[in-house]
Amino acid sequence: MSNFGFFDLRLVDPYDVAWKEAKSAVGAKAVLKDTRVFGSLAEAVADCSLVVGTAGVSKRELRHTVRRLEAGGKLIRRARGRVALVFGSEKYGLSNDDMSYCHWLLRIPTRAGHESMNLGQAVALCLWELARDPAEAKRAAQKKEPANMADLERLEQFLQEMLQDSGYFEARTSGSGALKLRRLVHRLELDAADAAIWMGMLRQIRWRMDNPAHRDPGATSPPTPTRTAQT
Amino acid sequence: MSNFGFFDLRLVDPYDVAWKEAKSAVGAKAVLKDTRVFGSLAEAVADCSLVVGTAGVSKRELRHTVRRLEAGGKLIRRARGRVALVFGSEKYGLSNDDMSYCHWLLRIPTRAGHESMNLGQAVALCLWELARDPAEAKRAAQKKEPANMADLERLEQFLQEMLQDSGYFEARTSGSGALKLRRLVHRLELDAADAAIWMGMLRQIRWRMDNPAHRDPGATSPPTPTRTAQT
Repeated sequence: MSNFGFFDLRLVDPYDVAWKEAKSAVGAKAVLKDTRVFGSLAEAVADCSLVVGTAGVSKRELRHTVRRLEAGGKLIRRARGRVALVFGSEKYGLSNDDMSYCHWLLRIPTRAGHESMNLGQAVALCLWELARDPAEAKRAAQKKEPANMADLERLEQFLQEMLQDSGYFEARTSGSGALKLRRLVHRLELDAADAAIWMGMLRQIRWRMDNPAHRDPGATSPPTPTRTAQT
Repeated sequence: MSNFGFFDLRLVDPYDVAWKEAKSAVGAKAVLKDTRVFGSLAEAVADCSLVVGTAGVSKRELRHTVRRLEAGGKLIRRARGRVALVFGSEKYGLSNDDMSYCHWLLRIPTRAGHESMNLGQAVALCLWELARDPAEAKRAAQKKEPANMADLERLEQFLQEMLQDSGYFEARTSGSGALKLRRLVHRLELDAADAAIWMGMLRQIRWRMDNPAHRDPGATSPPTPTRTAQT
């Protein structure tokens, strides 16, 4: 509840032993501190304009309208006034008497072979369905600042020279090879920081290529890398 | 996992005491029975094409692309090949080393004041986000067969007569009164079965209206109701 900003917990005739030993998670003290206990469901939902029960469905022939969580959540988000979401005991669910106070029922579409859910997980799912933002599914990820084309071009050129000097490209295919290489580098979709790291790594490898360790053990020390790799 | 049809649980270096005492929920035996234990995350995800880590974000400056659950879930649903969803320990989350195996990170957008979540609830939420059907949010509820207009008209007429005979309508306003009453009855959006129940209840009240108990205690027994109320 606290994770998604719901703070109004109401208990109906709770099992005293469990309730008195209930401990809140870190950060959720406000929920338990303000929890109210009622003697009946009718009293608990008296100030609500919409009362929605939750039900595993196969259990009985329900006279109520049953909505899947996706559709029901949408209706609840649009509801005016205070909404009560009613959960039964983990073992038995809501009684017929409890359901008679509900305007309609919400169903989490679990798979046919395993319908009953852990109560805490069922509550979390329902509240997430109310908290989630459908528009976010369409929004692109917050990516890092992408590398600009000049940086990519420098990287691609540098790599191309290394490949030519190392004999990877044959002279007659180097034109199409360069084109393939450019595509390959662009497909990496590097951000600016990662492009700089790759450039630094290539420079270092190039230096060692030009100053082989076995041929000239007394070579001067390598150039200071422009950037150290941080992954 | 079992509720939403996910059966491939893989554990990396689990805490033996807890793992050996783990008991599956009713209906979820298959998950625990087939759980595999690995010595490292690298081995556990070796056959996966997409590895997605989960993270509470505030923790550190992340170099990874972080996607909210709504957007990340959509990408995972569309992914080709096997996808690994990686959860860290409840206390510390994923290590930097763990994250280095991930293509990107998934974030459950909990409220700023209470970001850390119960592990079981976090898993349930992520799997629900993968299992939920966005199209269902647009689908209308499976309502019962609605009452047809003839039934509603009969009900409305019957009620109107009762109201007239009881003196609820004044003669001069009965025209607009009838109109208001028709609207009132239609707004109930009764299904066929409920319309029949209301009709039965009204008939019974009408009968008592015409055969007052105090005036004629020896009145004949009431007519058999056309339908008994089952609520």
